[in-house]
Amino acid sequence: QPSSGSHQTSTGPSEPKRVMVIGGDGYCGWATALHLSNKNYEVAIVDSLVRRLFDHQLGLDSLTPISSIHNRIRRWKSLTGKTIQLFIGDICDFEFLSETFNSFEPDAVVHFGEQRSAPYSMIDRSRAVFTQNNNVIGTLNVLFAIKEFREECHLVKLGTMGEYGTPNIDIEEGYITITHNGRTDTLPYPKQASSFYHLSKVHDSNNIAFTCKAWGIRATDLNQGVVYGVRTDETEMHEELCNRFDYDGVFGTALNRFCVQAAVGHALTVYGKGGQTRGYLDIRDTVQCVELAIANPAQRGEFRVFNQFTEQFSVNELAALVTKAGEKLGFPVETISVPNPRVEAEEHYYNAKHTKLIELGLQPHLLSDSLLDSLLNFTVKYKDRVDTKQIMPSVSWRKIGVKPKTIAA
Amino acid sequence: QPSSGSHQTSTGPSEPKRVMVIGGDGYCGWATALHLSNKNYEVAIVDSLVRRLFDHQLGLDSLTPISSIHNRIRRWKSLTGKTIQLFIGDICDFEFLSETFNSFEPDAVVHFGEQRSAPYSMIDRSRAVFTQNNNVIGTLNVLFAIKEFREECHLVKLGTMGEYGTPNIDIEEGYITITHNGRTDTLPYPKQASSFYHLSKVHDSNNIAFTCKAWGIRATDLNQGVVYGVRTDETEMHEELCNRFDYDGVFGTALNRFCVQAAVGHALTVYGKGGQTRGYLDIRDTVQCVELAIANPAQRGEFRVFNQFTEQFSVNELAALVTKAGEKLGFPVETISVPNPRVEAEEHYYNAKHTKLIELGLQPHLLSDSLLDSLLNFTVKYKDRVDTKQIMPSVSWRKIGVKPKTIAA
Ligand SMILES: NC(=O)c1ccc[n+]([C@@H]2O[C@H](COP(=O)([O-])OP(=O)(O)OC[C@H]3O[C@@H](n4cnc5c(N)ncnc54)[C@H](O)[C@@H]3O)[C@@H](O)[C@H]2O)c1
Ligand SMILES: NC(=O)c1ccc[n+]([C@@H]2O[C@H](COP(=O)([O-])OP(=O)(O)OC[C@H]3O[C@@H](n4cnc5c(N)ncnc54)[C@H](O)[C@@H]3O)[C@@H](O)[C@H]2O)c1
Repeated sequence: QPSSGSHQTSTGPSEPKRVMVIGGDGYCGWATALHLSNKNYEVAIVDSLVRRLFDHQLGLDSLTPISSIHNRIRRWKSLTGKTIQLFIGDICDFEFLSETFNSFEPDAVVHFGEQRSAPYSMIDRSRAVFTQNNNVIGTLNVLFAIKEFREECHLVKLGTMGEYGTPNIDIEEGYITITHNGRTDTLPYPKQASSFYHLSKVHDSNNIAFTCKAWGIRATDLNQGVVYGVRTDETEMHEELCNRFDYDGVFGTALNRFCVQAAVGHALTVYGKGGQTRGYLDIRDTVQCVELAIANPAQRGEFRVFNQFTEQFSVNELAALVTKAGEKLGFPVETISVPNPRVEAEEHYYNAKHTKLIELGLQPHLLSDSLLDSLLNFTVKYKDRVDTKQIMPSVSWRKIGVKPKTIAA
Repeated sequence: QPSSGSHQTSTGPSEPKRVMVIGGDGYCGWATALHLSNKNYEVAIVDSLVRRLFDHQLGLDSLTPISSIHNRIRRWKSLTGKTIQLFIGDICDFEFLSETFNSFEPDAVVHFGEQRSAPYSMIDRSRAVFTQNNNVIGTLNVLFAIKEFREECHLVKLGTMGEYGTPNIDIEEGYITITHNGRTDTLPYPKQASSFYHLSKVHDSNNIAFTCKAWGIRATDLNQGVVYGVRTDETEMHEELCNRFDYDGVFGTALNRFCVQAAVGHALTVYGKGGQTRGYLDIRDTVQCVELAIANPAQRGEFRVFNQFTEQFSVNELAALVTKAGEKLGFPVETISVPNPRVEAEEHYYNAKHTKLIELGLQPHLLSDSLLDSLLNFTVKYKDRVDTKQIMPSVSWRKIGVKPKTIAA
């Protein structure tokens, strides 16, 4: 596997050694940075820590206590002897980003560094604008940095399955071949995003695709499903390496939220009819998928799209699984239907392809009973840290207004 | 036709009276504002005049001398007795935009107010970022203003045919019905934009479509072709009402540029092979189309897409037409092939539908010999104002860099 020191002479993309993880202090980014470091990649984390600021401002906290990024990296070094470089700053600041590129000289950039909550993007006008500006301009800057400073560098960009919406036909991986009026072409798969956050990802995908064509950028767009779980081999090594686990109505995602709700005896919050079906994956598969993408880079000029999830579930199916697991562990679980704060189909066809990462070698960790048991036990362990006021959804897609929403204690 | 003074009691969209023209100091916007005012709509122009700043900064100027917006509006009033309200400011400033909405109370907003040059968006990183930020955030603000202050207001948004790129299948108006693996759905037509400017329009379209669904916004996206010509009934009334006419390599568009080139004896600048085919329309049809869209508003929640052009031409066809017209008027016209500064297909299939505006009553002004003669004569009249140094393209899609490009005298 890759070793350090030789990056001045490393040229082609065939042996990527130096990986910049943008958003490396976040949920997916932290697990990925450690995983890659453990696999002997040279890793640098780039993060503005703005996500920690959002939590402070909204009065939210991770279920799990998380250390500062500085302590996390020091602990990793003392445990493994491996160094992770740290660059604190905002990628929307191009001067800062240039500095990180010229100092670290990445062979691959994994870009997790965006405002990634759909509800956050629907709180008020200024947060909607922030989300699109932060995500779109940040990604544009990364593209310009690659073009200018590291043209062989492979961009691995996190998108979301939510970009596709819920079309009434099968969802393909990025492209679809259409025969129309007797002619045929393979075109970008139509997108139907349903929040300002999801839209920002569609904008990113379109911008990246253009730069692949115009500048020969090599890029992989990972349309990720909903991630669940928290433990990975590396974060388990020490409590100071523990990953964040969001359960609140703004940043928490479906299955993780249900586990916490079950652990504290809160009814599972199914939005509307609960027929919303999406792709899901274990965080251990997130890190695996990203590693596979890096180890098998896109060609110059190629805009490659992978759907990154392992299984589909409806919200009702997840609620039933968590209920069963709860009962097995001896606590009863109820489910309530909450008026849907989003605008989305609650019953719909859903069949999304996800074979490309499997073809590259992904070995999925499927959602088994035992996994669900251990995830539930994990949340029970931290249940005294739960602020139950944060569980119900507080952001409405329809009621978003133009006045800044202030948050009371 | 609409009359003033009654807007407090006017409710439904069936009789739109008050039209806000964002970007009303520009090429399409000025012609449209006058046309609508002439048709007895109450018109307000909202414009930051930033386009005049771009011209100053890049050392460019309109072929035609244009008056200040203040003098234009005063002259219109003195000629016709009609008042056009004026709001000078940037729609990215939401406080300003709110003020215009609450003061003017539009029934329809025609949104021309964007950075609209593909080459401008490809000059350097900061102009690429400016373009996407200006266009995307400006449009988001307009959507929020409608939702908050005028929820019945109809948004008529200028998009571009360039959003579609050059797929190998027929281009439909906004949506395409796809049958795939035995199932069928009608989905947004796939977009393949090829500059940061064109991409910004795709981002806008996606954002608008979402707000129609989530908030019930009524919107018409006019995917406009390349506009040519300069005279409209209203701008002809007085020289102080004269519209701008761009011929330079940054803001000038295909046919208009060729006419100026022919007028000054410059060879027609065909980029690459010249097989690039696009939709075109006369500026008199731009104003007609916008009026038709306003008079027939979209329903609440409807995201309606019209392809706004009347004829397709390849660059080579246009060059041949201008050559013929020049010869008829007694001056020889040459054509040269210039290395293509863009990244685009130079030979491709192109067949774009454009029936929806015809169905609403559009009566096209097709590009006849006599029209071309008069356009050519028009440019000859102003030929002493031409700065021939501005004719060749100066912006390369592939060479765009991160350093601010400074412009020398
Ligand atoms: N968590 C999921 O279930 C999920 C699902 C699909 C896709 N994704 C995508 O994966 C990526 C990571 O998600 P996550 O759950 O780890 O989010 P997260 O909020 O935990 O982490 C994102 C990190 O990016 C940083 N960041 C944001 N904007 C930045 C900027 N301008 N400059 C520098 N750093 C910035 C934040 O500080 C944060 O540490 C996101 O792009 C997200 O859209 C996540
Ligand atoms: N001219 C064409 O051939 C053509 C073709 C297709 C589409 N369009 C679209 O039609 C619209 C008008 O084009 P045009 O040729 O008249 O352009 P133009 O540059 O002549 O006019 C645009 C006007 O918008 C104003 N503006 C820009 N950003 C603004 C902001 N943030 N706030 C307030 N005002 C702002 C500018 O000052 C300018 O007066 C554009 O959206 C363009 O994309 C034009």
